[in-house]
Amino acid sequence: MAVEIIAETRLHGGRHLVVRHDSSTTHCPMEFALFIPPGDGPHACLIYLSGLTCTWENAATKAGAQAYAAQRGLVLVFPDTSPRGEGVADDAAFSLGQGAGFYMTATETPWAPHYAMDAYVTDELPGLVDQFALVDAGRVGITGHSMGGHGALTIAMKNPGRYRSLSAFAPISALSQLPWGKIALNAYRGSDEESFALYDAAACLKSHGWAGDILVDQGEADPFLEEHLRPDLLTAAAEEAGVDLTLRLHPGHDHSYWFVSSFMADHINWHASRLS
Amino acid sequence: MAVEIIAETRLHGGRHLVVRHDSSTTHCPMEFALFIPPGDGPHACLIYLSGLTCTWENAATKAGAQAYAAQRGLVLVFPDTSPRGEGVADDAAFSLGQGAGFYMTATETPWAPHYAMDAYVTDELPGLVDQFALVDAGRVGITGHSMGGHGALTIAMKNPGRYRSLSAFAPISALSQLPWGKIALNAYRGSDEESFALYDAAACLKSHGWAGDILVDQGEADPFLEEHLRPDLLTAAAEEAGVDLTLRLHPGHDHSYWFVSSFMADHINWHASRLS
Repeated sequence: MAVEIIAETRLHGGRHLVVRHDSSTTHCPMEFALFIPPGDGPHACLIYLSGLTCTWENAATKAGAQAYAAQRGLVLVFPDTSPRGEGVADDAAFSLGQGAGFYMTATETPWAPHYAMDAYVTDELPGLVDQFALVDAGRVGITGHSMGGHGALTIAMKNPGRYRSLSAFAPISALSQLPWGKIALNAYRGSDEESFALYDAAACLKSHGWAGDILVDQGEADPFLEEHLRPDLLTAAAEEAGVDLTLRLHPGHDHSYWFVSSFMADHINWHASRLS
Repeated sequence: MAVEIIAETRLHGGRHLVVRHDSSTTHCPMEFALFIPPGDGPHACLIYLSGLTCTWENAATKAGAQAYAAQRGLVLVFPDTSPRGEGVADDAAFSLGQGAGFYMTATETPWAPHYAMDAYVTDELPGLVDQFALVDAGRVGITGHSMGGHGALTIAMKNPGRYRSLSAFAPISALSQLPWGKIALNAYRGSDEESFALYDAAACLKSHGWAGDILVDQGEADPFLEEHLRPDLLTAAAEEAGVDLTLRLHPGHDHSYWFVSSFMADHINWHASRLS
Protein backbone atom coordinates (compact mmCIF):
# COMPACT_ATOMS: atom_id res chain seq x y z
CA MET A 1 0.00 0.00 0.00
CA ALA A 2 1.65 3.20 -1.19
CA VAL A 3 2.21 5.88 1.45
CA GLU A 4 4.23 8.89 0.39
CA ILE A 5 5.11 12.37 1.58
CA ILE A 6 4.07 14.67 -1.26
CA ALA A 7 5.12 17.91 0.47
CA GLU A 8 7.33 18.68 3.42
CA THR A 9 8.37 21.99 4.90
CA ARG A 10 9.76 23.45 8.07
CA LEU A 11 7.16 25.23 10.18
CA HIS A 12 7.48 26.85 13.61
CA GLY A 13 10.58 24.82 14.41
CA GLY A 14 8.87 21.56 13.46
CA ARG A 15 7.91 19.76 10.26
CA HIS A 16 4.77 20.02 8.17
CA LEU A 17 4.00 17.06 5.93
CA VAL A 18 1.32 16.31 3.39
CA VAL A 19 0.91 12.55 3.05
CA ARG A 20 -0.82 10.73 0.20
CA HIS A 21 -1.79 7.10 0.55
CA ASP A 22 -4.10 4.43 -0.82
CA SER A 23 -6.79 4.02 1.81
CA SER A 24 -7.94 0.55 2.79
CA THR A 25 -11.04 2.13 4.35
CA THR A 26 -12.29 4.48 1.64
CA HIS A 27 -10.74 2.49 -1.23
CA CYS A 28 -9.28 5.52 -2.94
CA PRO A 29 -6.17 7.70 -2.64
CA MET A 30 -6.42 10.05 0.35
CA GLU A 31 -4.34 12.98 1.58
CA PHE A 32 -3.83 14.37 5.07
CA ALA A 33 -1.53 16.97 6.61
CA LEU A 34 0.58 16.40 9.68
CA PHE A 35 2.43 18.85 11.90
CA ILE A 36 5.21 17.40 14.02
CA PRO A 37 6.44 19.80 16.71
CA PRO A 38 10.09 20.24 17.70
CA GLY A 39 11.54 17.54 19.94
CA ASP A 40 11.82 13.78 19.78
CA GLY A 41 8.51 12.85 21.43
CA PRO A 42 6.56 10.82 22.21
CA HIS A 43 4.14 13.65 21.60
CA ALA A 44 0.54 14.24 22.52
CA CYS A 45 -1.65 14.51 19.41
CA LEU A 46 -4.68 16.52 18.35
CA ILE A 47 -6.86 15.50 15.41
CA TYR A 48 -8.68 18.36 13.68
CA LEU A 49 -11.70 17.42 11.56
CA SER A 50 -12.67 19.98 8.94
CA GLY A 51 -16.05 21.17 7.73
CA LEU A 52 -18.06 21.06 4.51
CA THR A 53 -16.15 21.78 1.28
CA CYS A 54 -12.77 21.60 3.02
CA THR A 55 -9.70 19.48 2.47
CA TRP A 56 -6.76 19.24 4.91
CA GLU A 57 -5.57 22.50 3.44
CA ASN A 58 -8.10 24.97 4.84
CA ALA A 59 -7.32 24.42 8.49
CA ALA A 60 -3.64 23.71 7.93
CA THR A 61 -3.13 27.04 6.18
CA LYS A 62 -5.69 29.31 7.84
CA ALA A 63 -6.34 28.23 11.43
CA GLY A 64 -2.95 29.20 12.84
CA ALA A 65 -2.90 26.05 14.98
CA GLN A 66 0.69 25.02 14.35
CA ALA A 67 2.22 28.03 16.12
CA TYR A 68 0.47 27.07 19.34
CA ALA A 69 0.98 23.33 18.83
CA ALA A 70 4.71 23.94 18.48
CA GLN A 71 4.73 25.75 21.82
CA ARG A 72 2.76 22.99 23.53
CA GLY A 73 4.47 20.03 21.83
CA LEU A 74 1.37 18.69 20.07
CA VAL A 75 1.29 16.67 16.87
CA LEU A 76 -1.58 17.94 14.69
CA VAL A 77 -3.41 15.78 12.15
CA PHE A 78 -5.62 17.32 9.46
CA PRO A 79 -7.56 14.64 7.53
CA ASP A 80 -9.60 15.29 4.41
CA THR A 81 -13.40 15.45 4.72
CA SER A 82 -14.37 12.67 2.30
CA PRO A 83 -13.11 10.18 -0.24
CA ARG A 84 -12.36 11.83 -3.58
CA GLY A 85 -11.72 11.06 -7.22
CA GLU A 86 -13.47 10.26 -10.49
CA GLY A 87 -14.66 6.87 -9.31
CA VAL A 88 -16.14 8.23 -6.09
CA ALA A 89 -19.84 9.15 -5.96
CA ASP A 90 -20.60 12.85 -5.71
CA ASP A 91 -23.50 15.29 -5.70
CA ALA A 92 -24.02 18.81 -7.00
CA ALA A 93 -24.88 20.06 -3.49
CA PHE A 94 -21.88 21.26 -1.47
CA SER A 95 -23.33 19.49 1.56
CA LEU A 96 -23.39 15.99 0.08
CA GLY A 97 -20.75 13.79 -1.56
CA GLN A 98 -17.12 14.78 -2.03
CA GLY A 99 -16.09 17.29 0.63
CA ALA A 100 -19.10 16.26 2.74
CA GLY A 101 -18.41 12.83 4.24
CA PHE A 102 -20.04 13.77 7.56
CA TYR A 103 -17.77 11.31 9.41
CA MET A 104 -20.16 8.41 8.89
CA THR A 105 -20.07 5.00 7.22
CA ALA A 106 -22.45 4.85 4.29
CA THR A 107 -24.72 1.86 3.83
CA GLU A 108 -26.57 3.13 0.75
CA THR A 109 -25.98 3.18 -3.00
CA PRO A 110 -23.99 4.91 -4.50
CA TRP A 111 -22.07 5.97 -1.37
CA ALA A 112 -21.27 2.71 0.39
CA PRO A 113 -18.16 1.69 -1.58
CA HIS A 114 -16.06 4.70 -0.48
CA TYR A 115 -17.76 6.78 2.25
CA ALA A 116 -16.57 5.75 5.73
CA MET A 117 -14.81 8.77 7.19
CA ASP A 118 -15.49 7.82 10.82
CA ALA A 119 -13.79 4.46 10.32
CA TYR A 120 -10.99 6.17 8.38
CA VAL A 121 -10.30 8.56 11.26
CA THR A 122 -10.51 6.01 14.05
CA ASP A 123 -9.12 2.83 12.49
CA GLU A 124 -6.76 3.73 9.66
CA LEU A 125 -5.36 7.19 10.36
CA PRO A 126 -3.51 6.42 13.63
CA GLY A 127 -1.35 3.78 11.95
CA LEU A 128 -0.49 6.17 9.16
CA VAL A 129 0.43 8.97 11.57
CA ASP A 130 2.65 6.55 13.47
CA GLN A 131 4.76 6.07 10.36
CA PHE A 132 5.88 9.69 10.56
CA ALA A 133 5.51 10.92 14.14
CA LEU A 134 6.10 9.41 17.57
CA VAL A 135 2.65 9.77 19.15
CA ASP A 136 1.67 8.62 22.64
CA ALA A 137 -1.56 6.72 21.93
CA GLY A 138 -2.77 7.50 25.45
CA ARG A 139 -2.60 11.23 24.84
CA VAL A 140 -4.78 11.95 21.83
CA GLY A 141 -7.47 14.61 21.60
CA ILE A 142 -9.95 15.50 18.89
CA THR A 143 -11.60 18.71 17.69
CA GLY A 144 -13.23 20.02 14.56
CA HIS A 145 -15.19 22.77 12.86
CA SER A 146 -18.85 22.68 11.78
CA MET A 147 -19.34 19.24 10.13
CA GLY A 148 -15.96 18.42 11.68
CA GLY A 149 -17.20 19.51 15.08
CA HIS A 150 -20.03 17.02 14.67
CA GLY A 151 -17.41 14.44 13.69
CA ALA A 152 -15.18 15.12 16.68
CA LEU A 153 -18.05 14.97 19.17
CA THR A 154 -19.66 11.80 17.84
CA ILE A 155 -16.40 9.93 17.19
CA ALA A 156 -15.05 10.76 20.65
CA MET A 157 -18.20 9.73 22.48
CA LYS A 158 -18.64 6.48 20.53
CA ASN A 159 -15.05 5.46 21.27
CA PRO A 160 -14.70 5.87 25.04
CA GLY A 161 -11.12 5.82 26.27
CA ARG A 162 -9.76 6.54 22.82
CA TYR A 163 -9.59 10.34 23.06
CA ARG A 164 -8.67 12.12 26.24
CA SER A 165 -9.73 15.67 25.30
CA LEU A 166 -12.58 17.03 23.22
CA SER A 167 -13.65 20.38 21.81
CA ALA A 168 -15.46 21.82 18.80
CA PHE A 169 -15.82 25.03 16.81
CA ALA A 170 -19.39 25.80 15.70
CA PRO A 171 -20.38 22.13 15.48
CA ILE A 172 -23.49 20.73 13.82
CA SER A 173 -24.95 19.76 17.14
CA ALA A 174 -27.73 17.31 16.31
CA LEU A 175 -27.41 15.86 12.81
CA SER A 176 -30.71 14.00 12.82
CA GLN A 177 -32.69 17.16 13.64
CA LEU A 178 -31.06 19.66 11.26
CA PRO A 179 -31.38 20.14 7.48
CA TRP A 180 -27.83 19.41 6.21
CA GLY A 181 -27.61 16.49 8.57
CA LYS A 182 -31.00 14.99 7.73
CA ILE A 183 -30.18 15.05 4.01
CA ALA A 184 -26.81 13.39 4.65
CA LEU A 185 -28.23 10.75 6.98
CA ASN A 186 -30.96 9.85 4.51
CA ALA A 187 -28.50 9.68 1.63
CA TYR A 188 -25.72 7.75 3.35
CA ARG A 189 -27.71 5.57 5.79
CA GLY A 190 -31.36 5.96 4.78
CA SER A 191 -32.31 2.31 5.18
CA ASP A 192 -31.06 2.21 8.75
CA GLU A 193 -32.90 4.97 10.56
CA GLU A 194 -32.25 3.37 13.91
CA SER A 195 -28.57 4.25 13.51
CA PHE A 196 -29.19 7.96 12.95
CA ALA A 197 -28.78 8.70 16.65
CA LEU A 198 -25.22 7.35 16.50
CA TYR A 199 -24.38 10.19 14.12
CA ASP A 200 -26.02 12.91 16.19
CA ALA A 201 -23.83 14.65 18.76
CA ALA A 202 -26.67 15.64 21.10
CA ALA A 203 -28.09 12.11 20.97
CA CYS A 204 -24.64 10.59 21.59
CA LEU A 205 -24.23 12.82 24.64
CA LYS A 206 -27.37 11.26 26.08
CA SER A 207 -26.64 7.69 25.03
CA HIS A 208 -22.87 7.53 25.56
CA GLY A 209 -21.99 10.54 27.73
CA TRP A 210 -18.44 11.78 27.98
CA ALA A 211 -16.03 11.18 30.84
CA GLY A 212 -14.24 14.52 30.55
CA ASP A 213 -15.23 18.08 29.83
CA ILE A 214 -16.02 19.66 26.47
CA LEU A 215 -15.27 23.14 25.09
CA VAL A 216 -17.46 24.55 22.31
CA ASP A 217 -17.03 27.97 20.72
CA GLN A 218 -19.72 29.52 18.55
CA GLY A 219 -19.99 32.85 16.75
CA GLU A 220 -23.24 34.70 17.26
CA ALA A 221 -23.10 36.19 13.74
CA ASP A 222 -22.69 32.74 12.19
CA PRO A 223 -25.23 32.60 9.34
CA PHE A 224 -25.76 28.85 9.92
CA LEU A 225 -26.35 29.11 13.65
CA GLU A 226 -30.10 28.75 13.91
CA GLU A 227 -30.83 26.47 10.98
CA HIS A 228 -27.89 24.09 10.85
CA LEU A 229 -25.81 24.25 14.05
CA ARG A 230 -28.06 24.76 17.11
CA PRO A 231 -25.60 24.56 20.01
CA ASP A 232 -28.56 24.92 22.36
CA LEU A 233 -29.45 21.31 21.53
CA LEU A 234 -25.97 20.31 22.63
CA THR A 235 -26.05 22.18 25.91
CA ALA A 236 -29.50 20.77 26.70
CA ALA A 237 -28.23 17.24 26.03
CA ALA A 238 -25.11 17.83 28.13
CA GLU A 239 -27.24 19.04 31.01
CA GLU A 240 -29.48 15.99 30.74
CA ALA A 241 -26.44 13.70 30.57
CA GLY A 242 -24.59 15.49 33.36
CA VAL A 243 -21.63 16.24 31.11
CA ASP A 244 -19.49 19.32 31.77
CA LEU A 245 -19.83 21.28 28.53
CA THR A 246 -18.70 24.91 28.22
CA LEU A 247 -20.38 26.76 25.37
CA ARG A 248 -18.89 30.17 24.65
CA LEU A 249 -20.94 32.47 22.40
CA HIS A 250 -18.93 35.20 20.67
CA PRO A 251 -20.71 38.36 19.49
CA GLY A 252 -19.93 39.37 15.92
CA HIS A 253 -18.06 36.22 14.97
CA ASP A 254 -19.07 34.34 11.82
CA HIS A 255 -18.53 30.75 10.60
CA SER A 256 -15.21 31.32 8.81
CA TYR A 257 -11.60 30.60 9.61
CA TRP A 258 -11.41 34.16 10.94
CA PHE A 259 -13.58 32.78 13.75
CA VAL A 260 -11.68 29.49 14.10
CA SER A 261 -8.29 31.20 14.19
CA SER A 262 -9.49 33.69 16.80
CA PHE A 263 -10.05 30.90 19.33
CA MET A 264 -7.51 28.34 18.19
CA ALA A 265 -5.03 29.23 20.94
CA ASP A 266 -7.69 28.50 23.55
CA HIS A 267 -8.45 25.10 22.02
CA ILE A 268 -4.81 24.10 21.68
CA ASN A 269 -4.24 25.05 25.31
CA TRP A 270 -7.43 23.25 26.37
CA HIS A 271 -6.23 20.04 24.76
CA ALA A 272 -2.58 20.40 25.74
CA SER A 273 -3.43 20.83 29.40
CA ARG A 274 -5.63 17.71 29.34
CA LEU A 275 -3.07 15.68 27.38
CA SER A 276 -0.02 16.55 29.47
CA MET B 1 -14.61 58.54 -5.06
CA ALA B 2 -16.27 55.34 -3.87
CA VAL B 3 -14.74 53.69 -0.82
CA GLU B 4 -16.64 50.73 0.61
CA ILE B 5 -16.19 47.89 3.07
CA ILE B 6 -16.90 44.73 1.09
CA ALA B 7 -16.27 42.31 3.98
CA GLU B 8 -16.02 42.72 7.71
CA THR B 9 -15.53 40.17 10.44
CA ARG B 10 -14.43 39.91 14.03
CA LEU B 11 -10.90 38.58 14.43
CA HIS B 12 -8.82 38.13 17.58
CA GLY B 13 -10.93 40.63 19.49
CA GLY B 14 -10.57 43.24 16.74
CA ARG B 15 -12.04 43.87 13.29
CA HIS B 16 -10.91 42.62 9.91
CA LEU B 17 -12.05 44.65 6.91
CA VAL B 18 -11.69 44.29 3.18
CA VAL B 19 -11.98 47.69 1.54
CA ARG B 20 -12.65 48.37 -2.15
CA HIS B 21 -12.09 51.80 -3.61
CA ASP B 22 -11.47 53.64 -6.85
CA SER B 23 -7.80 54.54 -6.78
CA SER B 24 -6.68 58.00 -7.84
CA THR B 25 -3.14 56.63 -8.21
CA THR B 26 -3.62 53.44 -10.22
CA HIS B 27 -6.85 54.63 -11.89
CA CYS B 28 -8.71 51.39 -11.29
CA PRO B 29 -10.67 49.75 -8.47
CA MET B 30 -8.33 48.43 -5.76
CA GLU B 31 -8.82 46.27 -2.68
CA PHE B 32 -6.88 46.07 0.55
CA ALA B 33 -7.38 44.32 3.89
CA LEU B 34 -7.14 46.03 7.24
CA PHE B 35 -6.90 44.60 10.74
CA ILE B 36 -7.87 46.93 13.57
CA PRO B 37 -6.86 45.62 17.01
CA PRO B 38 -8.99 45.90 20.14
CA GLY B 39 -8.99 49.31 21.82
CA ASP B 40 -9.71 52.84 20.73
CA GLY B 41 -6.24 53.86 19.57
CA PRO B 42 -4.49 55.82 18.28
CA HIS B 43 -2.69 52.66 17.19
CA ALA B 44 0.72 51.99 15.74
CA CYS B 45 0.48 50.53 12.22
CA LEU B 46 2.39 47.97 10.19
CA ILE B 47 2.08 47.80 6.40
CA TYR B 48 2.71 44.35 4.88
CA LEU B 49 3.61 44.27 1.18
CA SER B 50 2.99 40.94 -0.53
CA GLY B 51 4.96 39.08 -3.17
CA LEU B 52 4.47 37.97 -6.77
CA THR B 53 1.04 36.52 -7.66
CA CYS B 54 -0.49 37.60 -4.33
CA THR B 55 -3.42 39.79 -3.45
CA TRP B 56 -4.15 41.09 0.07
CA GLU B 57 -5.65 37.68 0.77
CA ASN B 58 -2.56 35.49 0.93
CA ALA B 59 -0.91 37.22 3.86
CA ALA B 60 -4.16 38.12 5.57
CA THR B 61 -5.30 34.49 5.65
CA LYS B 62 -2.02 32.56 5.91
CA ALA B 63 0.61 34.61 7.74
CA GLY B 64 -0.98 34.51 11.17
CA ALA B 65 -0.05 38.14 11.78
CA GLN B 66 -3.33 39.31 13.28
CA ALA B 67 -3.04 37.18 16.43
CA TYR B 68 0.23 38.88 17.34
CA ALA B 69 -0.91 42.31 16.15
CA ALA B 70 -3.95 42.03 18.44
CA GLN B 71 -1.65 41.34 21.39
CA ARG B 72 0.63 44.27 20.54
CA GLY B 73 -2.08 46.73 19.50
CA LEU B 74 -0.96 47.13 15.88
CA VAL B 75 -3.14 48.04 12.93
CA LEU B 76 -2.15 45.86 9.94
CA VAL B 77 -2.58 46.93 6.32
CA PHE B 78 -2.41 44.40 3.46
CA PRO B 79 -2.44 46.15 0.06
CA ASP B 80 -2.75 44.35 -3.25
CA THR B 81 0.39 43.87 -5.39
CA SER B 82 -0.70 45.66 -8.57
CA PRO B 83 -3.55 47.39 -10.35
CA ARG B 84 -6.04 44.88 -11.78
CA GLY B 85 -8.89 44.58 -14.22
CA GLU B 86 -9.68 44.15 -17.88
CA GLY B 87 -8.43 47.58 -18.83
CA VAL B 88 -5.10 47.11 -17.03
CA ALA B 89 -2.05 45.87 -19.00
CA ASP B 90 -0.93 42.35 -18.16
CA ASP B 91 1.59 39.73 -19.23
CA ALA B 92 1.55 35.95 -19.39
CA ALA B 93 4.57 35.73 -17.07
CA PHE B 94 3.66 35.55 -13.38
CA SER B 95 6.49 37.98 -12.66
CA LEU B 96 5.21 40.84 -14.83
CA GLY B 97 1.91 42.71 -15.00
CA GLN B 98 -1.05 42.05 -12.76
CA GLY B 99 0.11 40.59 -9.43
CA ALA B 100 3.62 41.87 -10.13
CA GLY B 101 3.65 45.63 -9.67
CA PHE B 102 7.10 45.59 -8.03
CA TYR B 103 6.24 48.73 -6.05
CA MET B 104 7.43 51.05 -8.79
CA THR B 105 5.92 53.77 -10.96
CA ALA B 106 5.90 52.76 -14.61
CA THR B 107 7.02 55.20 -17.28
CA GLU B 108 6.64 52.86 -20.26
CA THR B 109 3.83 51.71 -22.55
CA PRO B 110 1.55 49.86 -21.84
CA TRP B 111 2.16 50.01 -18.07
CA ALA B 112 2.29 53.75 -17.31
CA PRO B 113 -1.47 54.46 -17.07
CA HIS B 114 -2.02 52.18 -14.05
CA TYR B 115 1.22 50.84 -12.53
CA ALA B 116 2.38 53.00 -9.60
CA MET B 117 2.28 50.78 -6.53
CA ASP B 118 4.98 52.72 -4.65
CA ALA B 119 2.98 55.94 -4.96
CA TYR B 120 -0.20 54.04 -4.08
CA VAL B 121 1.35 52.73 -0.85
CA THR B 122 2.99 55.97 0.24
CA ASP B 123 0.57 58.65 -0.99
CA GLU B 124 -2.93 57.19 -1.26
CA LEU B 125 -3.17 54.29 1.19
CA PRO B 126 -2.63 56.22 4.46
CA GLY B 127 -5.64 58.46 3.83
CA LEU B 128 -7.78 55.43 3.10
CA VAL B 129 -6.66 53.63 6.25
CA ASP B 130 -7.44 56.76 8.27
CA GLN B 131 -11.09 56.48 7.22
CA PHE B 132 -11.41 53.23 9.17
CA ALA B 133 -8.73 53.14 11.87
CA LEU B 134 -7.20 55.67 14.23
CA VAL B 135 -3.51 55.43 13.30
CA ASP B 136 -0.70 57.47 14.83
CA ALA B 137 1.14 58.68 11.71
CA GLY B 138 4.35 58.90 13.70
CA ARG B 139 4.26 55.19 14.52
CA VAL B 140 4.13 53.36 11.20
CA GLY B 141 6.36 50.46 10.16
CA ILE B 142 6.66 48.50 6.93
CA THR B 143 7.54 44.93 6.02
CA GLY B 144 6.97 42.55 3.14
CA HIS B 145 7.70 39.21 1.53
CA SER B 146 9.82 38.57 -1.57
CA MET B 147 8.78 41.27 -4.11
CA GLY B 148 7.06 42.89 -1.12
CA GLY B 149 10.31 42.75 0.86
CA HIS B 150 11.92 44.67 -1.97
CA GLY B 151 9.01 47.10 -1.80
CA ALA B 152 9.24 47.61 1.94
CA LEU B 153 12.99 48.20 1.88
CA THR B 154 13.05 50.61 -1.05
CA ILE B 155 9.92 52.55 -0.04
CA ALA B 156 11.15 52.97 3.54
CA MET B 157 14.61 54.16 2.56
CA LYS B 158 13.35 56.58 -0.09
CA ASN B 159 10.93 58.17 2.38
CA PRO B 160 13.09 58.98 5.41
CA GLY B 161 11.10 59.79 8.54
CA ARG B 162 7.97 58.21 7.14
CA TYR B 163 8.41 54.70 8.58
CA ARG B 164 9.91 54.09 11.97
CA SER B 165 10.54 50.33 11.71
CA LEU B 166 11.58 48.08 8.84
CA SER B 167 11.88 44.37 8.18
CA ALA B 168 11.56 41.90 5.31
CA PHE B 169 10.91 38.21 4.65
CA ALA B 170 13.05 36.75 1.85
CA PRO B 171 13.27 40.05 -0.05
CA ILE B 172 14.45 40.52 -3.63
CA SER B 173 17.56 42.29 -2.46
CA ALA B 174 18.89 44.04 -5.54
CA LEU B 175 16.30 44.39 -8.28
CA SER B 176 18.64 45.77 -10.93
CA GLN B 177 21.02 42.82 -10.63
CA LEU B 178 18.55 39.92 -10.54
CA PRO B 179 16.45 38.28 -13.30
CA TRP B 180 12.85 38.98 -12.20
CA GLY B 181 13.86 42.49 -11.26
CA LYS B 182 15.75 43.28 -14.44
CA ILE B 183 12.79 42.17 -16.57
CA ALA B 184 10.41 44.30 -14.49
CA LEU B 185 12.69 47.37 -14.53
CA ASN B 186 13.13 47.17 -18.28
CA ALA B 187 9.40 46.71 -18.85
CA TYR B 188 8.14 49.38 -16.45
CA ARG B 189 10.95 51.96 -16.61
CA GLY B 190 13.17 50.87 -19.52
CA SER B 191 13.75 54.35 -20.96
CA ASP B 192 15.01 55.68 -17.62
CA GLU B 193 17.89 53.40 -16.67
CA GLU B 194 19.29 56.01 -14.34
CA SER B 195 16.33 55.46 -12.05
CA PHE B 196 16.87 51.72 -11.71
CA ALA B 197 18.96 52.18 -8.58
CA LEU B 198 15.97 53.81 -6.86
CA TYR B 199 14.15 50.48 -7.17
CA ASP B 200 17.03 48.36 -5.90
CA ALA B 201 17.15 47.74 -2.15
CA ALA B 202 20.91 47.20 -1.96
CA ALA B 203 21.52 50.34 -4.03
CA CYS B 204 19.09 52.35 -1.87
CA LEU B 205 20.93 51.22 1.25
CA LYS B 206 24.09 52.79 -0.19
CA SER B 207 22.45 55.93 -1.55
CA HIS B 208 19.89 56.65 1.14
CA GLY B 209 20.90 54.57 4.17
CA TRP B 210 18.48 53.86 6.98
CA ALA B 211 18.36 55.57 10.35
CA GLY B 212 17.17 52.51 12.28
CA ASP B 213 17.90 48.81 12.22
CA ILE B 214 16.54 46.20 9.80
CA LEU B 215 15.49 42.58 10.35
CA VAL B 216 15.61 40.16 7.41
CA ASP B 217 14.64 36.48 7.58
CA GLN B 218 15.51 34.06 4.80
CA GLY B 219 14.96 30.33 4.36
CA GLU B 220 18.00 28.38 3.23
CA ALA B 221 15.84 25.90 1.29
CA ASP B 222 14.17 28.74 -0.62
CA PRO B 223 14.30 27.74 -4.31
CA PHE B 224 14.66 31.40 -5.38
CA LEU B 225 17.48 32.22 -3.00
CA GLU B 226 20.50 32.22 -5.28
CA GLU B 227 18.98 33.42 -8.52
CA HIS B 228 16.33 35.95 -7.50
CA LEU B 229 16.77 37.02 -3.85
CA ARG B 230 20.49 37.20 -2.91
CA PRO B 231 20.40 38.55 0.65
CA ASP B 232 24.21 38.58 0.55
CA LEU B 233 23.96 41.66 -1.70
CA LEU B 234 21.85 43.33 0.99
CA THR B 235 24.19 42.54 3.87
CA ALA B 236 27.19 43.73 1.82
CA ALA B 237 25.39 47.01 1.06
CA ALA B 238 24.40 47.44 4.71
CA GLU B 239 27.97 46.93 5.80
CA GLU B 240 29.17 49.49 3.27
CA ALA B 241 26.48 51.95 4.36
CA GLY B 242 27.01 51.34 8.07
CA VAL B 243 23.41 50.24 8.55
CA ASP B 244 22.52 47.76 11.31
CA LEU B 245 20.96 44.87 9.37
CA THR B 246 20.32 41.48 10.97
CA LEU B 247 20.03 38.66 8.42
CA ARG B 248 18.81 35.39 9.89
CA LEU B 249 19.22 32.30 7.70
CA HIS B 250 16.87 29.42 8.55
CA PRO B 251 17.84 25.87 7.55
CA GLY B 252 15.12 23.91 5.79
CA HIS B 253 12.74 26.82 5.33
CA ASP B 254 11.33 27.52 1.87
CA HIS B 255 9.74 30.61 0.24
CA SER B 256 6.13 29.90 1.22
CA TYR B 257 3.78 31.22 3.86
CA TRP B 258 4.85 28.28 6.01
CA PHE B 259 8.13 30.20 6.23
CA VAL B 260 6.54 33.63 6.67
CA SER B 261 4.17 32.43 9.40
CA SER B 262 7.02 30.73 11.27
CA PHE B 263 8.72 34.07 11.87
CA MET B 264 5.76 36.43 11.88
CA ALA B 265 5.70 36.71 15.69
CA ASP B 266 9.30 37.89 15.64
CA HIS B 267 8.54 40.55 13.04
CA ILE B 268 5.41 41.80 14.79
CA ASN B 269 7.36 42.06 18.03
CA TRP B 270 10.28 43.74 16.22
CA HIS B 271 7.98 46.42 14.84
CA ALA B 272 5.84 46.78 17.96
CA SER B 273 8.85 47.40 20.17
CA ARG B 274 10.15 50.09 17.79
CA LEU B 275 6.73 51.71 17.38
CA SER B 276 5.81 51.89 21.06
